[in-house]
Amino acid sequence: MVELLFKRLVIIGIGHIGASIARTLQTVPGTVETLVIADTSPAHLARAKELGLGTEYFADPSGAVKGADGVILCTPVGSFATIAEAIAPHLMKGCILSDVGSTKQSVWRDVSPFVPEGVQFVPAHPLAGTEFSGPDAGLPDLFKGRWCLLTPAENADAAAVQKIEALWAALGARTAKMTTAHHDRVVAIVSHLPHLIAFTICGTADDLADEMREEVLQFAASGFRDFTRIAASDPVMWRDTFLNNKDALLEMFSRFSEDAQAMARAVRWGDTGYIEDKINRSRKIRKSLIDIKQA
Amino acid sequence: MVELLFKRLVIIGIGHIGASIARTLQTVPGTVETLVIADTSPAHLARAKELGLGTEYFADPSGAVKGADGVILCTPVGSFATIAEAIAPHLMKGCILSDVGSTKQSVWRDVSPFVPEGVQFVPAHPLAGTEFSGPDAGLPDLFKGRWCLLTPAENADAAAVQKIEALWAALGARTAKMTTAHHDRVVAIVSHLPHLIAFTICGTADDLADEMREEVLQFAASGFRDFTRIAASDPVMWRDTFLNNKDALLEMFSRFSEDAQAMARAVRWGDTGYIEDKINRSRKIRKSLIDIKQA
Repeated sequence: MVELLFKRLVIIGIGHIGASIARTLQTVPGTVETLVIADTSPAHLARAKELGLGTEYFADPSGAVKGADGVILCTPVGSFATIAEAIAPHLMKGCILSDVGSTKQSVWRDVSPFVPEGVQFVPAHPLAGTEFSGPDAGLPDLFKGRWCLLTPAENADAAAVQKIEALWAALGARTAKMTTAHHDRVVAIVSHLPHLIAFTICGTADDLADEMREEVLQFAASGFRDFTRIAASDPVMWRDTFLNNKDALLEMFSRFSEDAQAMARAVRWGDTGYIEDKINRSRKIRKSLIDIKQA
Repeated sequence: MVELLFKRLVIIGIGHIGASIARTLQTVPGTVETLVIADTSPAHLARAKELGLGTEYFADPSGAVKGADGVILCTPVGSFATIAEAIAPHLMKGCILSDVGSTKQSVWRDVSPFVPEGVQFVPAHPLAGTEFSGPDAGLPDLFKGRWCLLTPAENADAAAVQKIEALWAALGARTAKMTTAHHDRVVAIVSHLPHLIAFTICGTADDLADEMREEVLQFAASGFRDFTRIAASDPVMWRDTFLNNKDALLEMFSRFSEDAQAMARAVRWGDTGYIEDKINRSRKIRKSLIDIKQA
Protein backbone atom coordinates (compact mmCIF):
# COMPACT_ATOMS: atom_id res chain seq x y z
CA MET A 1 0.00 0.00 0.00
CA VAL A 2 3.08 2.27 0.27
CA GLU A 3 3.41 4.76 -2.57
CA LEU A 4 6.79 6.17 -3.58
CA LEU A 5 6.37 9.91 -3.05
CA PHE A 6 9.93 11.24 -3.37
CA LYS A 7 12.99 9.72 -5.00
CA ARG A 8 15.30 12.10 -3.17
CA LEU A 9 13.90 13.98 -0.17
CA VAL A 10 16.08 16.44 1.75
CA ILE A 11 15.49 17.39 5.38
CA ILE A 12 17.29 20.63 6.20
CA GLY A 13 17.75 20.83 9.98
CA ILE A 14 17.76 17.55 11.91
CA GLY A 15 16.21 18.74 15.19
CA HIS A 16 13.12 17.43 16.99
CA ILE A 17 10.76 17.73 13.99
CA GLY A 18 13.27 16.82 11.25
CA ALA A 19 14.44 13.76 13.17
CA SER A 20 10.83 12.76 13.86
CA ILE A 21 10.07 12.91 10.11
CA ALA A 22 13.16 10.73 9.47
CA ARG A 23 12.20 8.22 12.18
CA THR A 24 8.62 8.02 10.95
CA LEU A 25 9.70 7.53 7.34
CA GLN A 26 11.64 4.46 8.51
CA THR A 27 8.32 2.98 9.62
CA VAL A 28 6.88 3.38 6.09
CA PRO A 29 9.76 2.16 3.89
CA GLY A 30 9.26 2.84 0.20
CA THR A 31 7.71 6.27 0.69
CA VAL A 32 11.06 7.95 0.08
CA GLU A 33 13.89 6.32 -1.87
CA THR A 34 16.83 8.39 -0.62
CA LEU A 35 16.55 10.50 2.52
CA VAL A 36 19.17 13.25 2.59
CA ILE A 37 19.94 15.05 5.83
CA ALA A 38 21.55 18.48 5.94
CA ASP A 39 22.53 20.37 9.06
CA THR A 40 25.09 23.15 9.52
CA SER A 41 25.76 21.97 13.09
CA PRO A 42 28.58 19.38 12.92
CA ALA A 43 27.40 17.87 16.22
CA HIS A 44 23.81 17.43 15.03
CA LEU A 45 24.94 15.99 11.70
CA ALA A 46 27.33 13.52 13.34
CA ARG A 47 24.62 12.45 15.78
CA ALA A 48 22.07 11.99 12.96
CA LYS A 49 24.60 9.75 11.20
CA GLU A 50 25.22 7.73 14.39
CA LEU A 51 21.48 7.29 14.81
CA GLY A 52 21.18 6.25 11.16
CA LEU A 53 18.40 8.73 10.47
CA GLY A 54 19.11 9.17 6.74
CA THR A 55 20.84 7.79 3.63
CA GLU A 56 23.17 10.72 2.90
CA TYR A 57 24.49 13.54 5.06
CA PHE A 58 25.51 17.10 4.12
CA ALA A 59 26.83 20.01 6.16
CA ASP A 60 25.91 22.38 3.34
CA PRO A 61 22.20 22.66 2.41
CA SER A 62 23.08 23.86 -1.12
CA GLY A 63 24.99 20.67 -1.86
CA ALA A 64 22.27 18.55 -0.31
CA VAL A 65 19.41 19.78 -2.48
CA LYS A 66 21.04 18.97 -5.84
CA GLY A 67 18.86 16.56 -7.79
CA ALA A 68 16.22 16.43 -5.06
CA ASP A 69 12.52 16.23 -5.93
CA GLY A 70 11.57 17.23 -2.39
CA VAL A 71 13.07 19.59 0.23
CA ILE A 72 11.69 20.29 3.70
CA LEU A 73 13.00 23.17 5.80
CA CYS A 74 13.05 22.04 9.45
CA THR A 75 15.19 24.79 11.03
CA PRO A 76 13.87 27.66 13.19
CA VAL A 77 11.85 30.05 10.97
CA GLY A 78 14.33 32.90 11.55
CA SER A 79 16.83 31.07 9.34
CA PHE A 80 14.48 30.48 6.39
CA ALA A 81 15.33 33.55 4.26
CA THR A 82 19.07 32.82 4.38
CA ILE A 83 18.61 29.14 3.61
CA ALA A 84 16.08 29.77 0.83
CA GLU A 85 18.43 32.24 -0.85
CA ALA A 86 21.35 29.80 -0.56
CA ILE A 87 19.59 26.71 -1.90
CA ALA A 88 17.40 28.37 -4.58
CA PRO A 89 19.99 28.26 -7.42
CA HIS A 90 20.53 24.54 -6.77
CA LEU A 91 16.89 23.40 -6.81
CA MET A 92 16.00 21.35 -9.86
CA LYS A 93 12.88 21.93 -11.95
CA GLY A 94 9.92 19.99 -10.59
CA CYS A 95 11.26 20.00 -7.03
CA ILE A 96 8.69 20.59 -4.29
CA LEU A 97 9.89 22.85 -1.51
CA SER A 98 8.10 22.66 1.83
CA ASP A 99 8.76 23.42 5.49
CA VAL A 100 7.48 22.75 9.02
CA GLY A 101 7.64 26.33 10.35
CA SER A 102 5.05 27.43 12.87
CA THR A 103 4.52 30.94 11.42
CA LYS A 104 3.19 30.97 7.90
CA GLN A 105 2.94 34.63 6.81
CA SER A 106 6.62 35.11 7.68
CA VAL A 107 7.58 31.91 5.88
CA TRP A 108 5.76 33.05 2.76
CA ARG A 109 7.43 36.49 3.01
CA ASP A 110 10.93 35.01 3.57
CA VAL A 111 10.95 32.05 1.21
CA SER A 112 8.70 32.72 -1.78
CA PRO A 113 10.84 35.56 -3.29
CA PHE A 114 13.65 33.05 -3.82
CA VAL A 115 11.61 30.14 -5.23
CA PRO A 116 12.76 29.62 -8.83
CA GLU A 117 10.50 29.10 -11.85
CA GLY A 118 9.47 25.43 -12.04
CA VAL A 119 9.85 24.79 -8.32
CA GLN A 120 6.63 24.45 -6.28
CA PHE A 121 6.53 25.92 -2.76
CA VAL A 122 3.96 24.26 -0.46
CA PRO A 123 4.29 25.51 3.15
CA ALA A 124 3.17 23.11 5.90
CA HIS A 125 3.04 23.10 9.69
CA PRO A 126 2.56 19.92 11.72
CA LEU A 127 0.82 20.73 15.02
CA ALA A 128 3.01 18.39 17.00
CA GLY A 129 6.09 18.58 19.17
CA THR A 130 7.31 17.98 22.67
CA GLU A 131 9.58 20.04 24.90
CA PHE A 132 12.61 18.04 23.72
CA SER A 133 15.00 19.11 20.96
CA GLY A 134 17.87 17.87 18.79
CA PRO A 135 18.35 14.73 16.64
CA ASP A 136 17.90 12.42 19.64
CA ALA A 137 14.38 13.77 20.11
CA GLY A 138 13.14 12.14 16.89
CA LEU A 139 9.95 10.18 17.60
CA PRO A 140 8.38 7.72 15.13
CA ASP A 141 4.85 8.43 16.37
CA LEU A 142 5.00 12.20 16.89
CA PHE A 143 2.58 13.04 14.06
CA LYS A 144 0.15 10.17 14.54
CA GLY A 145 -3.40 11.53 14.49
CA ARG A 146 -2.17 15.14 14.71
CA TRP A 147 -3.02 17.92 12.28
CA CYS A 148 -0.65 19.24 9.65
CA LEU A 149 -1.81 22.61 8.31
CA LEU A 150 -0.95 23.46 4.68
CA THR A 151 -0.97 27.05 3.47
CA PRO A 152 -0.42 26.85 -0.30
CA ALA A 153 -0.90 29.91 -2.49
CA GLU A 154 -4.26 30.17 -4.28
CA ASN A 155 -2.61 29.40 -7.61
CA ALA A 156 -0.45 26.59 -6.24
CA ASP A 157 0.16 23.51 -8.37
CA ALA A 158 -2.49 20.97 -7.32
CA ALA A 159 -0.22 17.96 -7.85
CA ALA A 160 2.49 19.45 -5.62
CA VAL A 161 -0.03 20.19 -2.86
CA GLN A 162 -1.38 16.66 -3.13
CA LYS A 163 2.11 15.23 -2.79
CA ILE A 164 2.78 17.14 0.43
CA GLU A 165 -0.63 16.04 1.73
CA ALA A 166 0.26 12.45 0.86
CA LEU A 167 3.62 12.77 2.63
CA TRP A 168 1.93 13.94 5.84
CA ALA A 169 -0.70 11.24 5.53
CA ALA A 170 2.13 8.71 5.25
CA LEU A 171 3.63 10.22 8.42
CA GLY A 172 0.32 9.59 10.18
CA ALA A 173 -1.08 13.14 10.25
CA ARG A 174 -4.40 14.61 9.15
CA THR A 175 -4.11 17.59 6.83
CA ALA A 176 -6.11 20.79 6.35
CA LYS A 177 -5.61 23.79 4.06
CA MET A 178 -6.02 27.44 5.04
CA THR A 179 -4.62 30.89 4.31
CA THR A 180 -1.37 31.99 5.95
CA ALA A 181 -3.18 34.76 7.86
CA HIS A 182 -5.82 32.40 9.22
CA HIS A 183 -3.15 29.89 10.18
CA ASP A 184 -1.16 32.47 12.11
CA ARG A 185 -4.14 33.53 14.23
CA VAL A 186 -5.12 29.93 15.02
CA VAL A 187 -1.64 28.94 16.18
CA ALA A 188 -1.18 32.22 18.05
CA ILE A 189 -3.98 31.24 20.42
CA VAL A 190 -3.57 27.45 20.61
CA SER A 191 0.21 27.35 20.79
CA HIS A 192 2.20 30.60 20.79
CA LEU A 193 0.31 32.44 23.54
CA PRO A 194 0.31 29.39 25.88
CA HIS A 195 4.08 29.18 25.44
CA LEU A 196 4.56 32.90 26.09
CA ILE A 197 2.49 32.57 29.26
CA ALA A 198 4.36 29.46 30.40
CA PHE A 199 7.77 31.10 29.88
CA THR A 200 6.55 34.14 31.78
CA ILE A 201 5.08 32.44 34.83
CA CYS A 202 8.23 30.38 35.32
CA GLY A 203 10.19 33.61 35.59
CA THR A 204 7.62 35.18 37.92
CA ALA A 205 7.82 32.14 40.19
CA ASP A 206 11.59 32.12 40.13
CA ASP A 207 11.77 35.79 41.18
CA LEU A 208 9.47 34.97 44.05
CA ALA A 209 11.52 31.91 44.98
CA ASP A 210 14.53 34.20 45.39
CA GLU A 211 12.51 36.32 47.80
CA MET A 212 10.99 33.36 49.64
CA ARG A 213 14.21 31.34 49.69
CA GLU A 214 13.64 28.47 47.22
CA GLU A 215 10.40 27.12 48.58
CA VAL A 216 8.37 27.86 45.47
CA LEU A 217 10.02 25.21 43.32
CA GLN A 218 10.24 22.69 46.12
CA PHE A 219 6.47 22.71 46.49
CA ALA A 220 5.56 23.00 42.83
CA ALA A 221 2.09 21.52 42.57
CA SER A 222 0.49 20.07 39.51
CA GLY A 223 -0.59 23.35 37.94
CA PHE A 224 2.87 24.77 37.88
CA ARG A 225 4.57 21.54 36.82
CA ASP A 226 2.49 21.41 33.65
CA PHE A 227 3.54 24.97 32.85
CA THR A 228 7.21 24.15 33.26
CA ARG A 229 6.89 21.22 30.87
CA ILE A 230 5.71 23.58 28.14
CA ALA A 231 8.35 26.10 29.17
CA ALA A 232 11.23 23.67 28.64
CA SER A 233 11.03 24.07 24.83
CA ASP A 234 13.82 25.21 22.51
CA PRO A 235 14.74 28.91 23.00
CA VAL A 236 15.82 29.77 19.44
CA MET A 237 12.83 28.10 17.85
CA TRP A 238 10.44 29.93 20.16
CA ARG A 239 12.20 33.28 19.92
CA ASP A 240 11.88 33.02 16.12
CA THR A 241 8.26 31.93 16.39
CA PHE A 242 7.26 34.85 18.61
CA LEU A 243 9.05 37.44 16.48
CA ASN A 244 7.66 36.05 13.22
CA ASN A 245 4.07 35.91 14.40
CA LYS A 246 4.21 39.18 16.28
CA ASP A 247 0.92 40.73 15.14
CA ALA A 248 -1.28 37.70 15.77
CA LEU A 249 0.50 36.88 19.03
CA LEU A 250 0.13 40.42 20.38
CA GLU A 251 -3.54 40.45 19.40
CA MET A 252 -4.16 37.19 21.27
CA PHE A 253 -2.12 38.40 24.23
CA SER A 254 -4.24 41.53 24.36
CA ARG A 255 -7.48 39.50 24.31
CA PHE A 256 -6.13 37.18 27.01
CA SER A 257 -4.99 40.12 29.17
CA GLU A 258 -8.45 41.70 29.07
CA ASP A 259 -10.04 38.38 30.05
CA ALA A 260 -7.48 37.73 32.81
CA GLN A 261 -8.02 41.23 34.22
CA ALA A 262 -11.77 40.58 34.24
CA MET A 263 -11.19 37.31 36.11
CA ALA A 264 -8.89 39.02 38.64
CA ARG A 265 -11.51 41.73 39.13
CA ALA A 266 -14.16 39.05 39.77
CA VAL A 267 -11.86 37.49 42.40
CA ARG A 268 -11.28 40.89 44.03
CA TRP A 269 -15.00 41.70 44.22
CA GLY A 270 -16.18 38.18 45.01
CA ASP A 271 -18.22 37.78 41.83
CA THR A 272 -18.88 34.06 42.30
CA GLY A 273 -21.21 33.79 39.30
CA TYR A 274 -18.59 35.12 36.91
CA ILE A 275 -15.88 32.83 38.28
CA GLU A 276 -18.05 29.72 38.17
CA ASP A 277 -19.21 30.53 34.63
CA LYS A 278 -15.62 30.78 33.42
CA ILE A 279 -14.55 27.55 35.10
CA ASN A 280 -17.61 25.67 33.83
CA ARG A 281 -16.92 26.93 30.34
CA SER A 282 -13.32 25.68 30.54
CA ARG A 283 -14.59 22.26 31.52
CA LYS A 284 -16.89 22.23 28.49
CA ILE A 285 -13.96 23.12 26.24
CA ARG A 286 -11.94 20.30 27.74
CA LYS A 287 -14.85 17.94 27.17
CA SER A 288 -15.22 18.99 23.54
CA LEU A 289 -11.48 18.48 23.01
CA ILE A 290 -11.82 14.95 24.37
CA ASP A 291 -14.84 14.40 22.10
CA ILE A 292 -12.86 15.44 19.02
CA LYS A 293 -9.87 13.40 20.24
CA GLN A 294 -7.39 16.23 20.64
CA ALA A 295 -6.78 15.63 24.35
CA MET B 1 5.49 -1.73 60.61
CA VAL B 2 1.97 -0.21 60.48
CA GLU B 3 1.10 1.93 63.48
CA LEU B 4 -2.51 2.47 64.56
CA LEU B 5 -2.95 6.23 64.28
CA PHE B 6 -6.71 6.67 64.66
CA LYS B 7 -9.33 4.36 66.15
CA ARG B 8 -12.15 6.28 64.48
CA LEU B 9 -11.25 8.65 61.65
CA VAL B 10 -13.94 10.69 59.90
CA ILE B 11 -13.61 12.00 56.36
CA ILE B 12 -16.12 14.80 55.76
CA GLY B 13 -16.64 15.16 51.99
CA ILE B 14 -15.92 12.12 49.83
CA GLY B 15 -14.69 13.88 46.67
CA HIS B 16 -11.39 13.45 44.80
CA ILE B 17 -9.16 14.05 47.84
CA GLY B 18 -11.37 12.40 50.48
CA ALA B 19 -11.81 9.31 48.31
CA SER B 20 -8.08 9.21 47.60
CA ILE B 21 -7.34 9.25 51.35
CA ALA B 22 -9.84 6.39 51.80
CA ARG B 23 -8.37 4.38 48.92
CA THR B 24 -4.81 4.91 50.16
CA LEU B 25 -5.72 3.91 53.72
CA GLN B 26 -6.92 0.58 52.31
CA THR B 27 -3.35 -0.03 51.12
CA VAL B 28 -2.01 0.44 54.69
CA PRO B 29 -4.51 -1.57 56.78
CA GLY B 30 -4.16 -1.07 60.53
CA THR B 31 -3.45 2.66 60.28
CA VAL B 32 -7.09 3.46 60.98
CA GLU B 33 -9.46 1.09 62.79
CA THR B 34 -12.80 2.51 61.66
CA LEU B 35 -13.04 4.86 58.69
CA VAL B 36 -16.22 6.93 58.80
CA ILE B 37 -17.40 8.74 55.69
CA ALA B 38 -19.75 11.71 55.83
CA ASP B 39 -21.18 13.54 52.84
CA THR B 40 -24.31 15.68 52.58
CA SER B 41 -24.72 14.64 48.93
CA PRO B 42 -26.86 11.47 48.88
CA ALA B 43 -25.40 10.53 45.47
CA HIS B 44 -21.79 10.83 46.66
CA LEU B 45 -22.53 8.93 49.88
CA ALA B 46 -24.30 6.12 48.01
CA ARG B 47 -21.44 5.88 45.55
CA ALA B 48 -18.84 5.81 48.33
CA LYS B 49 -20.78 2.91 49.89
CA GLU B 50 -20.93 1.06 46.55
CA LEU B 51 -17.20 1.52 46.14
CA GLY B 52 -16.64 0.29 49.70
CA LEU B 53 -14.50 3.30 50.62
CA GLY B 54 -15.27 3.27 54.38
CA THR B 55 -16.60 1.31 57.34
CA GLU B 56 -19.55 3.56 58.28
CA TYR B 57 -21.48 6.18 56.31
CA PHE B 58 -23.29 9.31 57.51
CA ALA B 59 -25.28 11.98 55.68
CA ASP B 60 -24.90 14.29 58.69
CA PRO B 61 -21.33 15.33 59.66
CA SER B 62 -22.44 16.04 63.27
CA GLY B 63 -23.55 12.47 63.73
CA ALA B 64 -20.43 11.14 62.05
CA VAL B 65 -17.90 12.83 64.34
CA LYS B 66 -19.28 11.42 67.62
CA GLY B 67 -16.58 9.43 69.41
CA ALA B 68 -14.02 10.12 66.68
CA ASP B 69 -10.36 10.71 67.57
CA GLY B 70 -9.69 12.18 64.11
CA VAL B 71 -11.72 14.31 61.68
CA ILE B 72 -10.57 15.57 58.27
CA LEU B 73 -12.52 18.23 56.38
CA CYS B 74 -12.34 17.38 52.65
CA THR B 75 -15.07 19.67 51.27
CA PRO B 76 -14.45 22.92 49.33
CA VAL B 77 -13.03 25.54 51.74
CA GLY B 78 -16.09 27.78 51.35
CA SER B 79 -18.10 25.26 53.41
CA PHE B 80 -15.64 25.00 56.33
CA ALA B 81 -17.16 27.64 58.67
CA THR B 82 -20.64 26.08 58.46
CA ILE B 83 -19.33 22.55 58.97
CA ALA B 84 -16.99 23.54 61.81
CA GLU B 85 -19.84 25.27 63.65
CA ALA B 86 -22.11 22.24 63.14
CA ILE B 87 -19.68 19.55 64.27
CA ALA B 88 -17.92 21.47 67.08
CA PRO B 89 -20.39 20.54 69.89
CA HIS B 90 -20.07 16.86 68.96
CA LEU B 91 -16.27 16.57 68.95
CA MET B 92 -14.89 14.57 71.85
CA LYS B 93 -11.98 15.70 74.00
CA GLY B 94 -8.67 14.59 72.52
CA CYS B 95 -9.99 14.58 68.97
CA ILE B 96 -7.65 15.95 66.28
CA LEU B 97 -9.36 18.08 63.67
CA SER B 98 -7.59 18.54 60.34
CA ASP B 99 -8.46 19.41 56.74
CA VAL B 100 -7.08 19.33 53.19
CA GLY B 101 -8.08 22.86 52.14
CA SER B 102 -5.83 24.71 49.72
CA THR B 103 -6.11 28.14 51.43
CA LYS B 104 -4.79 28.20 54.97
CA GLN B 105 -5.38 31.72 56.31
CA SER B 106 -9.07 31.42 55.46
CA VAL B 107 -9.26 27.96 57.01
CA TRP B 108 -7.74 29.25 60.22
CA ARG B 109 -10.14 32.21 60.21
CA ASP B 110 -13.21 30.03 59.51
CA VAL B 111 -12.53 26.95 61.65
CA SER B 112 -10.46 27.89 64.69
CA PRO B 113 -13.19 30.03 66.41
CA PHE B 114 -15.35 26.90 66.70
CA VAL B 115 -12.70 24.46 67.91
CA PRO B 116 -13.66 23.42 71.47
CA GLU B 117 -11.33 23.21 74.46
CA GLY B 118 -9.48 19.88 74.38
CA VAL B 119 -9.70 19.45 70.60
CA GLN B 120 -6.52 20.02 68.57
CA PHE B 121 -6.79 21.72 65.20
CA VAL B 122 -3.93 20.89 62.79
CA PRO B 123 -4.57 22.30 59.28
CA ALA B 124 -2.96 20.43 56.37
CA HIS B 125 -2.86 20.74 52.58
CA PRO B 126 -1.67 17.91 50.32
CA LEU B 127 -0.20 19.34 47.10
CA ALA B 128 -1.80 16.71 44.95
CA GLY B 129 -4.83 16.37 42.76
CA THR B 130 -5.92 15.74 39.22
CA GLU B 131 -8.63 17.38 37.13
CA PHE B 132 -11.11 14.65 38.14
CA SER B 133 -13.65 14.94 40.94
CA GLY B 134 -16.13 12.91 42.99
CA PRO B 135 -15.87 9.60 44.91
CA ASP B 136 -14.93 7.69 41.73
CA ALA B 137 -11.81 9.85 41.40
CA GLY B 138 -10.21 8.30 44.49
CA LEU B 139 -6.66 7.19 43.67
CA PRO B 140 -4.55 4.96 45.96
CA ASP B 141 -1.29 6.58 44.82
CA LEU B 142 -2.31 10.25 44.58
CA PHE B 143 -0.12 11.40 47.48
CA LYS B 144 2.91 9.21 46.82
CA GLY B 145 6.05 11.36 47.01
CA ARG B 146 4.02 14.59 47.02
CA TRP B 147 4.22 17.30 49.66
CA CYS B 148 1.64 17.84 52.36
CA LEU B 149 1.99 21.27 53.97
CA LEU B 150 0.98 21.63 57.63
CA THR B 151 0.19 25.02 59.11
CA PRO B 152 -0.25 24.42 62.86
CA ALA B 153 -0.46 27.32 65.29
CA GLU B 154 2.76 28.21 67.13
CA ASN B 155 1.37 26.84 70.38
CA ALA B 156 -0.12 23.72 68.76
CA ASP B 157 0.00 20.43 70.64
CA ALA B 158 3.17 18.66 69.44
CA ALA B 159 1.66 15.17 69.71
CA ALA B 160 -1.34 16.17 67.57
CA VAL B 161 0.92 17.69 64.90
CA GLN B 162 3.05 14.53 64.93
CA LYS B 163 -0.02 12.37 64.46
CA ILE B 164 -1.16 14.32 61.38
CA GLU B 165 2.41 14.14 60.03
CA ALA B 166 2.38 10.38 60.62
CA LEU B 167 -0.97 10.06 58.84
CA TRP B 168 0.37 11.82 55.74
CA ALA B 169 3.57 9.78 55.88
CA ALA B 170 1.38 6.65 55.95
CA LEU B 171 -0.45 8.02 52.90
CA GLY B 172 2.92 8.30 51.12
CA ALA B 173 3.44 12.06 51.31
CA ARG B 174 6.35 14.17 52.54
CA THR B 175 5.40 16.82 55.09
CA ALA B 176 6.60 20.35 55.84
CA LYS B 177 5.46 22.96 58.32
CA MET B 178 5.02 26.68 57.62
CA THR B 179 2.86 29.64 58.60
CA THR B 180 -0.56 30.09 57.02
CA ALA B 181 0.55 33.34 55.34
CA HIS B 182 3.65 31.75 53.82
CA HIS B 183 1.61 28.78 52.64
CA ASP B 184 -0.93 30.99 50.91
CA ARG B 185 1.72 32.85 48.90
CA VAL B 186 3.50 29.65 47.85
CA VAL B 187 0.32 27.98 46.59
CA ALA B 188 -0.89 31.20 44.96
CA ILE B 189 2.04 31.08 42.55
CA VAL B 190 2.50 27.32 42.08
CA SER B 191 -1.15 26.36 41.85
CA HIS B 192 -3.84 29.05 42.09
CA LEU B 193 -2.45 31.48 39.49
CA PRO B 194 -1.75 28.70 36.93
CA HIS B 195 -5.37 27.60 37.31
CA LEU B 196 -6.71 31.14 36.95
CA ILE B 197 -4.65 31.55 33.78
CA ALA B 198 -5.76 28.19 32.39
CA PHE B 199 -9.44 28.95 33.01
CA THR B 200 -8.99 32.33 31.34
CA ILE B 201 -7.17 31.25 28.20
CA CYS B 202 -9.76 28.55 27.52
CA GLY B 203 -12.43 31.25 27.48
CA THR B 204 -10.31 33.55 25.31
CA ALA B 205 -9.83 30.74 22.81
CA ASP B 206 -13.49 29.83 22.84
CA ASP B 207 -14.53 33.43 22.08
CA LEU B 208 -12.12 33.41 19.17
CA ALA B 209 -13.42 30.03 18.00
CA ASP B 210 -16.88 31.60 17.72
CA GLU B 211 -15.42 34.31 15.50
CA MET B 212 -13.29 31.92 13.46
CA ARG B 213 -15.95 29.23 13.23
CA GLU B 214 -14.69 26.38 15.46
CA GLU B 215 -11.23 25.96 14.05
CA VAL B 216 -9.41 26.87 17.24
CA LEU B 217 -10.42 23.77 19.16
CA GLN B 218 -10.07 21.49 16.16
CA PHE B 219 -6.41 22.41 15.84
CA ALA B 220 -5.56 22.62 19.52
CA ALA B 221 -1.84 21.94 19.69
CA SER B 222 0.10 20.66 22.64
CA GLY B 223 0.39 23.98 24.46
CA PHE B 224 -3.31 24.55 24.59
CA ARG B 225 -4.20 20.95 25.40
CA ASP B 226 -2.11 21.06 28.57
CA PHE B 227 -3.94 24.21 29.62
CA THR B 228 -7.34 22.60 29.10
CA ARG B 229 -6.33 19.65 31.25
CA ILE B 230 -5.69 21.98 34.17
CA ALA B 231 -8.85 23.90 33.32
CA ALA B 232 -11.08 20.83 33.64
CA SER B 233 -10.94 20.98 37.45
CA ASP B 234 -13.91 21.25 39.84
CA PRO B 235 -15.67 24.67 39.63
CA VAL B 236 -16.89 24.99 43.24
CA MET B 237 -13.56 23.93 44.72
CA TRP B 238 -11.69 26.44 42.57
CA ARG B 239 -14.18 29.28 43.07
CA ASP B 240 -13.78 28.82 46.84
CA THR B 241 -10.00 28.60 46.53
CA PHE B 242 -9.72 31.84 44.55
CA LEU B 243 -12.05 33.78 46.85
CA ASN B 244 -10.35 32.49 50.00
CA ASN B 245 -6.82 33.27 48.84
CA LYS B 246 -7.74 36.57 47.22
CA ASP B 247 -4.89 38.73 48.51
CA ALA B 248 -2.05 36.36 47.66
CA LEU B 249 -3.62 35.40 44.33
CA LEU B 250 -4.09 39.03 43.26
CA GLU B 251 -0.52 39.82 44.28
CA MET B 252 0.82 36.94 42.17
CA PHE B 253 -1.47 37.89 39.29
CA SER B 254 -0.13 41.41 39.42
CA ARG B 255 3.50 40.20 39.35
CA PHE B 256 2.69 37.84 36.47
CA SER B 257 0.88 40.60 34.52
CA GLU B 258 3.87 42.92 34.78
CA ASP B 259 6.18 40.15 33.56
CA ALA B 260 3.82 39.15 30.74
CA GLN B 261 3.52 42.77 29.59
CA ALA B 262 7.31 43.01 29.56
CA MET B 263 7.49 39.85 27.44
CA ALA B 264 4.84 41.17 25.02
CA ARG B 265 6.76 44.43 24.77
CA ALA B 266 9.95 42.51 23.95
CA VAL B 267 8.06 40.68 21.19
CA ARG B 268 6.69 43.96 19.81
CA TRP B 269 10.11 45.62 19.72
CA GLY B 270 12.07 42.54 18.69
CA ASP B 271 14.19 42.39 21.85
CA THR B 272 15.69 38.97 21.09
CA GLY B 273 18.04 39.01 24.08
CA TYR B 274 15.21 39.52 26.54
CA ILE B 275 13.09 36.78 24.99
CA GLU B 276 15.93 34.25 24.89
CA ASP B 277 16.89 35.02 28.48
CA LYS B 278 13.36 34.34 29.68
CA ILE B 279 13.06 31.10 27.74
CA ASN B 280 16.47 29.88 28.89
CA ARG B 281 15.54 30.69 32.46
CA SER B 282 12.33 28.66 32.13
CA ARG B 283 14.34 25.71 30.92
CA LYS B 284 16.60 25.98 33.95
CA ILE B 285 13.58 25.99 36.22
CA ARG B 286 12.27 22.90 34.51
CA LYS B 287 15.63 21.25 34.94
CA SER B 288 15.77 22.08 38.64
CA LEU B 289 12.26 20.67 39.06
CA ILE B 290 13.40 17.43 37.45
CA ASP B 291 16.48 17.42 39.69
CA ILE B 292 14.36 17.72 42.84
CA LYS B 293 11.90 15.15 41.42
CA GLN B 294 8.83 17.37 41.22
CA ALA B 295 8.35 16.93 37.47
